[in-house]
Amino acid sequence: MDIPTKMKGLALLEDGYANAPATQELTNLAPYVELREMDVPQPGPGLALIKVARAAVNPSDIAFIKGVYGQSRVKDQAAGFEGTGTVVAGDTPLLGQRVSFFAAGSGSWAEYCLAPIPMLIPLRPDLRDEDAAGLIVNPLTAMAMFDIAREDGADSFVVTAAGSQLGKFLIGLGKDHGIGALAVIRREAQAEALRALGAADVLVTEGEGLEERLTELFEVHAPRILLDAVGDQISADLFFAMPERARWIIYGRLSPTPPTLAQLPQFIFKQKQIEGFWLASWLRNTPPEKIGAVIAEAQARFAEGKWHTDITASVRLDNALAELPAAYSQKDSKVLIEP
Amino acid sequence: MDIPTKMKGLALLEDGYANAPATQELTNLAPYVELREMDVPQPGPGLALIKVARAAVNPSDIAFIKGVYGQSRVKDQAAGFEGTGTVVAGDTPLLGQRVSFFAAGSGSWAEYCLAPIPMLIPLRPDLRDEDAAGLIVNPLTAMAMFDIAREDGADSFVVTAAGSQLGKFLIGLGKDHGIGALAVIRREAQAEALRALGAADVLVTEGEGLEERLTELFEVHAPRILLDAVGDQISADLFFAMPERARWIIYGRLSPTPPTLAQLPQFIFKQKQIEGFWLASWLRNTPPEKIGAVIAEAQARFAEGKWHTDITASVRLDNALAELPAAYSQKDSKVLIEP
Repeated sequence: MDIPTKMKGLALLEDGYANAPATQELTNLAPYVELREMDVPQPGPGLALIKVARAAVNPSDIAFIKGVYGQSRVKDQAAGFEGTGTVVAGDTPLLGQRVSFFAAGSGSWAEYCLAPIPMLIPLRPDLRDEDAAGLIVNPLTAMAMFDIAREDGADSFVVTAAGSQLGKFLIGLGKDHGIGALAVIRREAQAEALRALGAADVLVTEGEGLEERLTELFEVHAPRILLDAVGDQISADLFFAMPERARWIIYGRLSPTPPTLAQLPQFIFKQKQIEGFWLASWLRNTPPEKIGAVIAEAQARFAEGKWHTDITASVRLDNALAELPAAYSQKDSKVLIEP
Repeated sequence: MDIPTKMKGLALLEDGYANAPATQELTNLAPYVELREMDVPQPGPGLALIKVARAAVNPSDIAFIKGVYGQSRVKDQAAGFEGTGTVVAGDTPLLGQRVSFFAAGSGSWAEYCLAPIPMLIPLRPDLRDEDAAGLIVNPLTAMAMFDIAREDGADSFVVTAAGSQLGKFLIGLGKDHGIGALAVIRREAQAEALRALGAADVLVTEGEGLEERLTELFEVHAPRILLDAVGDQISADLFFAMPERARWIIYGRLSPTPPTLAQLPQFIFKQKQIEGFWLASWLRNTPPEKIGAVIAEAQARFAEGKWHTDITASVRLDNALAELPAAYSQKDSKVLIEP
C-alpha cells in the first residue's frame, strides 16, 4: 500500500499530568492540542499502522488532553484513544481489513495511527462506521459495569448522566437482561426518550422534593449498584439513600464540585463502599477470551439494532479546533473526527 | 445461687435511632440513660445470666445510647455492650465461672446482665479484671482489622486516633508481626509513648507542613491500609496521599465534620476504595473456630503483657451519671463501670 511519510494530526502540547484537577468539560481545544503536519508513525513489533476513517471523542479523551486522565501525556504525539479504519502496515493477517482499534504510541486524532495488534477488532460488514468508531471505550465500559450490576444479584441498578451514550447503552442492557436501569438525569426533557429505551424508572434531579422522590424510588427498587459518571453531591445523596451494601462505582467526573460524605456511619453499619471503574484496569485484569466475547457481543448488539450510536457531529480534522468544542458540548450524544 | 429479683442499672430513655447524626463524644449522660431499680432479667433459651463485676465503656456504647449505632435501642433496657463477671444462671457448663461476655437483651451497665451462651469466654486465671472487662470489642476489632492489613501484603498500615486503646493494640500487633503501624495523632505529647509501644513512625497532625510531612512518610512506607476512627478531612487527606490501591477503612466517627472527596479520579485511576469495618458484621461472617482462636490469642496477649488496658477510672454504677462524662473525656484510655 502506498503510505505517505507525512500526515496531519492533532498533536499534544504538554507532557505528563496537569498540576490541578479539571473536569471533562471542553470550552477550548487550543491550550491542549494543535493541528500540525507530523511524521506518519512507524509500527514497531506488535503494532499495526491504521489509516483512520473515523476517530471517537470520548470524555476520557478530554480528560487525557487536559492531563487529568490516568495515563501520562507525551508531547507532540497525536491525541485520541480509539477509532475505526483500515490496517495498512504491521505483522498481522488483518492487513487491508477494516477494524476498530485502541491507539497506542500515537493517537487516533490523525490521518494515521498505531494500534496494538492483539486488540484490533475485525468488523462485521453490517456494522456502521459511526458505531465502529466507538466500539471499544463506551460499549466495553457499559458491558463490564453491567456485569457488576448483574453479579450483585439485585433486580435494578442506578445510572447517573443516564442520557449520555454510555448511559443509553446501560439502559439497553438492563432492558434486555431484566435488570432495570434507574436513569438519573438533570432535566425532565430527556425522561420520555429514556423510558422508551427501556429504563425501569427515571429520576429527574431538577425540581421539588428530590429527597422524597428518591427515597420512594429506592424503596420500590432497592438497587445496590450506583454507576456514576458525575461525582457531585447528588451522587453522594443517591448513595446514602440506597439500601445496605450499596456500592458507589465512580467511572467519570463530570462535576467540578466535590461531594461531602455526610453519613459516614453507613460505611460501618450498612457495609457501603465507594470504588472506581477504569476500563484500562478491566482490560488488564480480564482474560483475553472474555474480552473477545464481550467485543463480539457489542458488535452483535449494534448490528442487530439493540444499540445505536447517536452522532451529533462528524468534524473534519482541519476544522477540529474551531468546531469540536461546540459540537462536544451538545450533551448526550457523540462527536467523531474524520481525517 | 442466691439471685435477687431487683437490681440497679443504667436504663435507656429512648427507643430506636436518633433523628440526627451525632459523634461519639460524651458531655452528659442524662439525656440518654437513668439510674433505676429494675427487674433482674430472666435468661431465656441460649442465654446466661451474669453477675457483672466490671463493664466496659466503649465509643460504640456512647454511639448506641445516643441512637447512632447500627443497632436499635430498646427503652428501659440497661445499656452497655460488654463486661466481665460470673455466670449465675443459664444452661451452660460455665455456671459459676468467671467469663468475659457480650450482652444481649439487657446491658452490662447493671448489676446483672444477659449474654448469649455461645459467646461466653471462660477466662485464664492470670487475666486481670481490667483486661477481661474489655476483652471483646477492642481486642477483636484490633485483631480483625490487623488481619486486613496483614492480608494486604504491604509492610505498614496507617492508624488514626492512634493513642486510643484500640490504636495501641494495633501498634502492638504491628510491632510483633513486623508490619509497622504509622500512628496518626493530633498532638506531639503522645508521640514518644507510641514510639515506645512499637509504632513504625508517628505523624502529628498539629503543626506546620502537614502535607509535606505526610507525603514524605508515605513515600518511605507506601502503606495501602488506613484504619480510621475519626472520619474528618485529615483522614481524607491521608487517604488521597496514599499510593495506588489504598483502602480507607472507617470503623468509628470521632469527628463531627464530614470530609470532602476532593480527588475523585483516584477511585478510577488509582483503584482506591472506601469501606467500613463493624465487629458485629465480622462476628456474623467469621467461622466460630476462627473467632475462638482470635479470642484465645487476645487473652494470651494480655496475660503475657503484650497488651495492657490502661484504665483511667473505674466508676461506680451509683456515680456514673455524675462521674462518667468527665472520666470518659480523658482521651486515650479506658473507663469501666463497677456495679
